[in-house]
Amino acid sequence: MKPNLLKSLLAAGKTAVNGWISIPSPFAAEIYAAQGFDSVALDMQHGALDINDAVPLLQAICLSPNVTPMARVPWNNPADIMRVLDAGAMGIICPMINTRMEAQALVEAGRYPPMGARSFGPFRAAQYAGADYWQHANSEVLLIAMIETREALKNLDEILAVKGLDGVYVGPSDLSISMGKTPTLDPSDKDVLGAIAEIAKKTRAKGLIAGAHTDGPKTAAKRYAEGYQFCTLLNDVRVMANAVNALIKETKGLAPAEASKTY
Amino acid sequence: MKPNLLKSLLAAGKTAVNGWISIPSPFAAEIYAAQGFDSVALDMQHGALDINDAVPLLQAICLSPNVTPMARVPWNNPADIMRVLDAGAMGIICPMINTRMEAQALVEAGRYPPMGARSFGPFRAAQYAGADYWQHANSEVLLIAMIETREALKNLDEILAVKGLDGVYVGPSDLSISMGKTPTLDPSDKDVLGAIAEIAKKTRAKGLIAGAHTDGPKTAAKRYAEGYQFCTLLNDVRVMANAVNALIKETKGLAPAEASKTY
Amino acid sequence: MKPNLLKSLLAAGKTAVNGWISIPSPFAAEIYAAQGFDSVALDMQHGALDINDAVPLLQAICLSPNVTPMARVPWNNPADIMRVLDAGAMGIICPMINTRMEAQALVEAGRYPPMGARSFGPFRAAQYAGADYWQHANSEVLLIAMIETREALKNLDEILAVKGLDGVYVGPSDLSISMGKTPTLDPSDKDVLGAIAEIAKKTRAKGLIAGAHTDGPKTAAKRYAEGYQFCTLLNDVRVMANAVNALIKETKGLAPAEASKTY
Amino acid sequence: MKPNLLKSLLAAGKTAVNGWISIPSPFAAEIYAAQGFDSVALDMQHGALDINDAVPLLQAICLSPNVTPMARVPWNNPADIMRVLDAGAMGIICPMINTRMEAQALVEAGRYPPMGARSFGPFRAAQYAGADYWQHANSEVLLIAMIETREALKNLDEILAVKGLDGVYVGPSDLSISMGKTPTLDPSDKDVLGAIAEIAKKTRAKGLIAGAHTDGPKTAAKRYAEGYQFCTLLNDVRVMANAVNALIKETKGLAPAEASKTY
Amino acid sequence: MKPNLLKSLLAAGKTAVNGWISIPSPFAAEIYAAQGFDSVALDMQHGALDINDAVPLLQAICLSPNVTPMARVPWNNPADIMRVLDAGAMGIICPMINTRMEAQALVEAGRYPPMGARSFGPFRAAQYAGADYWQHANSEVLLIAMIETREALKNLDEILAVKGLDGVYVGPSDLSISMGKTPTLDPSDKDVLGAIAEIAKKTRAKGLIAGAHTDGPKTAAKRYAEGYQFCTLLNDVRVMANAVNALIKETKGLAPAEASKTY
Amino acid sequence: MKPNLLKSLLAAGKTAVNGWISIPSPFAAEIYAAQGFDSVALDMQHGALDINDAVPLLQAICLSPNVTPMARVPWNNPADIMRVLDAGAMGIICPMINTRMEAQALVEAGRYPPMGARSFGPFRAAQYAGADYWQHANSEVLLIAMIETREALKNLDEILAVKGLDGVYVGPSDLSISMGKTPTLDPSDKDVLGAIAEIAKKTRAKGLIAGAHTDGPKTAAKRYAEGYQFCTLLNDVRVMANAVNALIKETKGLAPAEASKTY
Repeated sequence: MKPNLLKSLLAAGKTAVNGWISIPSPFAAEIYAAQGFDSVALDMQHGALDINDAVPLLQAICLSPNVTPMARVPWNNPADIMRVLDAGAMGIICPMINTRMEAQALVEAGRYPPMGARSFGPFRAAQYAGADYWQHANSEVLLIAMIETREALKNLDEILAVKGLDGVYVGPSDLSISMGKTPTLDPSDKDVLGAIAEIAKKTRAKGLIAGAHTDGPKTAAKRYAEGYQFCTLLNDVRVMANAVNALIKETKGLAPAEASKTY
Repeated sequence: MKPNLLKSLLAAGKTAVNGWISIPSPFAAEIYAAQGFDSVALDMQHGALDINDAVPLLQAICLSPNVTPMARVPWNNPADIMRVLDAGAMGIICPMINTRMEAQALVEAGRYPPMGARSFGPFRAAQYAGADYWQHANSEVLLIAMIETREALKNLDEILAVKGLDGVYVGPSDLSISMGKTPTLDPSDKDVLGAIAEIAKKTRAKGLIAGAHTDGPKTAAKRYAEGYQFCTLLNDVRVMANAVNALIKETKGLAPAEASKTY
Repeated sequence: MKPNLLKSLLAAGKTAVNGWISIPSPFAAEIYAAQGFDSVALDMQHGALDINDAVPLLQAICLSPNVTPMARVPWNNPADIMRVLDAGAMGIICPMINTRMEAQALVEAGRYPPMGARSFGPFRAAQYAGADYWQHANSEVLLIAMIETREALKNLDEILAVKGLDGVYVGPSDLSISMGKTPTLDPSDKDVLGAIAEIAKKTRAKGLIAGAHTDGPKTAAKRYAEGYQFCTLLNDVRVMANAVNALIKETKGLAPAEASKTY
Repeated sequence: MKPNLLKSLLAAGKTAVNGWISIPSPFAAEIYAAQGFDSVALDMQHGALDINDAVPLLQAICLSPNVTPMARVPWNNPADIMRVLDAGAMGIICPMINTRMEAQALVEAGRYPPMGARSFGPFRAAQYAGADYWQHANSEVLLIAMIETREALKNLDEILAVKGLDGVYVGPSDLSISMGKTPTLDPSDKDVLGAIAEIAKKTRAKGLIAGAHTDGPKTAAKRYAEGYQFCTLLNDVRVMANAVNALIKETKGLAPAEASKTY
Repeated sequence: MKPNLLKSLLAAGKTAVNGWISIPSPFAAEIYAAQGFDSVALDMQHGALDINDAVPLLQAICLSPNVTPMARVPWNNPADIMRVLDAGAMGIICPMINTRMEAQALVEAGRYPPMGARSFGPFRAAQYAGADYWQHANSEVLLIAMIETREALKNLDEILAVKGLDGVYVGPSDLSISMGKTPTLDPSDKDVLGAIAEIAKKTRAKGLIAGAHTDGPKTAAKRYAEGYQFCTLLNDVRVMANAVNALIKETKGLAPAEASKTY
Repeated sequence: MKPNLLKSLLAAGKTAVNGWISIPSPFAAEIYAAQGFDSVALDMQHGALDINDAVPLLQAICLSPNVTPMARVPWNNPADIMRVLDAGAMGIICPMINTRMEAQALVEAGRYPPMGARSFGPFRAAQYAGADYWQHANSEVLLIAMIETREALKNLDEILAVKGLDGVYVGPSDLSISMGKTPTLDPSDKDVLGAIAEIAKKTRAKGLIAGAHTDGPKTAAKRYAEGYQFCTLLNDVRVMANAVNALIKETKGLAPAEASKTY
């Protein structure tokens, strides 16, 4: 089976940079994924994507052979988790894991028996990863729980103790709202920052993977410094919007408002 | 009929900034078009789009009511030109107009009788622009010929003399190749620059519109200075790729290669 | 934030007419939504639509700036409710709310903390409604529970007492079946009619919104008279089928069966 | 080979009613086609459809086994004509046939050698019509030229003399514009009406099929009386828009503007 | 209402052969379904399909009027079951039914009151099966539970006792994994074979339908001999892959590696 | 630039086996292309594909890194040829090249200046093949003319003399029809066979590539023996249909018509 490069990288003690796709276009996805990411995740919760998009988008990502294809699933339900894995995602980032039971349900859906209850039928995953996929999937596929509420913080030790879970991923916006603060990908609130630091600390201490959502390089650098091993830089559409917005402003600054009459 | 804002703007002597869509996603297009452009064109020639994409993408652009929806058609053929106009494009940028006859064919396809031979059936254009669309379309719709070969340069006077043509648009890459140079959106070759300056000069002298394709603000500024009235800044997917590539590099520069162990 | 016009209208004591989309075509949706409705809902339960269709269809509806975009979700599950809201629906009509707990789950999914547990990521909603969307969404987004079973009737008082719920919507076909009667959008059964009247009465008495599904103007008029504030007129495909069926019959009545020989 | 029912019907001297699809939804198409039409055409010129839509839409139409599937192609070009026939259309209505040569080109594209130069590969047509499709296609497939310009009128005799052409179809809007009049599907202009009558007369006199586009039963009745054998009643989206517009107006007339307070 | 032919066939004591679609192409589906199957199921669990694909794929299957359209739903959840039925599936094969309660939930979702709680809105099913669909759907629609875990085996008697369930379907791969064996569609393990035989025995003894997933004719023959009444032969994409793989090998065996030089 | 492996293989005197895709599913295409082909072509003329499908299907093929992606374009028109090349096809098989002028038009569309007039904008090709794509495309991209009419045979010498053309491809069905025979992929008619042999002879004598369409290994073996260097084996959908048809028949032969009663 093709090894999970993101897993190997993190196991080797390295950091990684993760992409986040919200645009349902295989054309855009191929070019986006080729820009240097270690892994790229489909955002099926807050992106304009659904199950139908998973196969062509994962194909597009896989054209960059060193990029690990991942997915943030819409919700912690077995059908979506299994189908996205079958489509070839090598990692699942699951939103709103607030309790030990919810983390166990994620593992139940994401692991074949006897570890879990994943149904067999890796219709594209076996094409991508090899005919021996099913024998190694339980150890190669990453299952990552989003920690993004006050309740999850409270239950963090129990969540981290769930066997079969590979790590956690911080959603700073939801975490902020849950703690009564303004949603932001670059929190400055002391309580939120404290929580974020604590999540890394506890997770890494258990030998598990810690990842975080950020708004770009500077915030990511803060997270890496706290012990986070992989960080996401916005998503595709926001990067495009920010860049084009700046280019238009720059152009309007450089260009005359009135068309030149000396031609 | 809803007026063509780009046409009005240019007629008032102002400059404009144009967008260029190659990603067939209405979601991405809505956000892209909302960033401050005066007009946005679907690139149906060198973008990942086809006729089926025209209606939802034009709808997405029209959600920014001050942005004029345009299309660069795949080729100078009547079916594509008419269908994109029927879908609601308020301007056509037509590739590879090299002769007077080709410019006339563009006008023939893009204007209702007696000016041309456009077939009646503005199935979405009348929804977008109003029930009186057909009465004003001949004057409101922009027909713009791409000048991008040595042959077109040679025939420029004849092309500019074609009645019903609103202006021209320079494709610097094709123009460069045609002149035996390396394709680029920011030409530095003297001959190519000379040709580009001449196109603006002749076009503006006729009272017609001059537009140009560029790779961003700085090149656009050169074009505006030469008399070009509207410039395009790369396309959506290249803006995204460039931006994300820079963000990844910045992150990798700021982040430690080895995951922090002090958590 | 762009205000919810349907909410304002009903709050001002007016009545409203609602559309119902089952055809997954942004082209058809734009034209349908432009015919005079106050609001238009995507029918994701009994229409040929799914999550992938939500963004382009909501874009099409939003081209009529005075029409409030809504969705009848497939089921009372958090993933679908949150994703459709993120896509820009300003109201949720949720099927089969039979108990207080089910109504609470709807509110949990549809409201940000501390009112609920909606996850943050309004990827298109913020584009549509403004950057301050998240601050006002809890008060602007309508959450409406479908009352369509005997069990729901029994629990109506408890359902109406759930904080964060804006109103109810009657599904006469399911209600009829649940009461052992023939499904119909224009019930004549005394028990069903009694139930429908009671729902309006109790809902309005609480100051909440009452809506109803109908088969057209005459049935809608009965509902308005009973206190319902907004009514839906069939769906897009049935309106089209009924109309075209009548036109064919009329044509076959007017036209000779044998082709005229006097030409 | 499955016989072409529309052809048989017209050959038997009967009249027919034709549908016109502009919405690219197989769901809507199945229901539309089942309402009683003798034939239904995909409008690939002025509808929101393209080649990709042809297979699923023709499948939807074929679920009504007595309805003959047709297509109005985008233009008189061989690729589109051949591909739509291969997809299973049993008749082609080709826009803008103005000269004998254009009519011959239509026949060239639509007939196998030795009558024409259609390329062999009926990838869905053979599934629909049977393995012996290629042996009978030249006689079963209808090729119909749109007569919709002053030039076509002038050349009508020559066009009607082209071997392999089955008939003509009048586009009243384009014909009106071409004659300097306002586009309409129910012309009252004497010159246009004269032309329309003459087209039927000449066509029927040659033993060929005459069809016409109309805005509904009353106009169709006029055309049948003039000798037209099949008429089209608007298109799907306009029928829907007209019907829903009327229903909303009726509802707003019947409903109180102010919500009832006696509940 | 159009009768369920698969149900009638099995009720008459005949065997049936079932197809399995994983490719989301209506074009491929029409041709696949026309090859002689008695029934064809959409695989929405381990196929590249989702809800959006259901309508066009079911339309494609229905073009073979003697083939019963079915669906293996993604999971035992009411929304998916109801929507696929509304789209016109005449049978549901539901994965992972392990307990009596899970079987009851399937019946609840798949039957109208008073047998269940299916919501009324057969938007395409009534088009396919007739206006009286709702009156007969409870008896005509097949509800089939997949038995594919050790737990399901243990609870088989209770599952078979659930009123409204029509039968069971064996998933040999999952059953094998669940029993600690290698997944395979042609099990040779004694325990697994024993379980498979027992499932047929108990199911048939109750007068219910027994079906099984297989890898082709030879394995199917074993299952028929054990009392299974309908068997599935791989899925569409695996049949294609196996066939084309063999053809390439045969060609490479017959063809010279070096291009012939005697031409 | 990534070299064209098919070109290299044939230049080295080897034979190749080519696939042919008619199903517009990236999922099916990835699996189909991975079965051992040297090259795989999209059939945009007689397949259920269009321009919109080119990017995702070519991406799916490219996941097999040793398979050269190709396309049979719908027709010899510049827009389609250029767009499919821009999407990343490394070879064009162009139908119905009957004259020297038509072959020259193919070269004009498929080669950058000064060899031809291809427009610059390899929006996906440069992603696939490298940033230096444009410098090598003229030598790496294969342009192959279909010889499939009596007229083409007559003009073969002139066609083969066109500079920039890499080879020819025989379409036996169209060739047969054009010669007054029954269409078949395995011709036994002496005249057709003579023509096919002559095409290989003349093409190879010029040092150009000869390819042929066949119905499978046995016919391909005949063509290789005649000097053809690459052969196509049916298309995807026919391989699937033939295989599944045989499996159903085998199953019905092995299975009892009556369900076993000894369970």
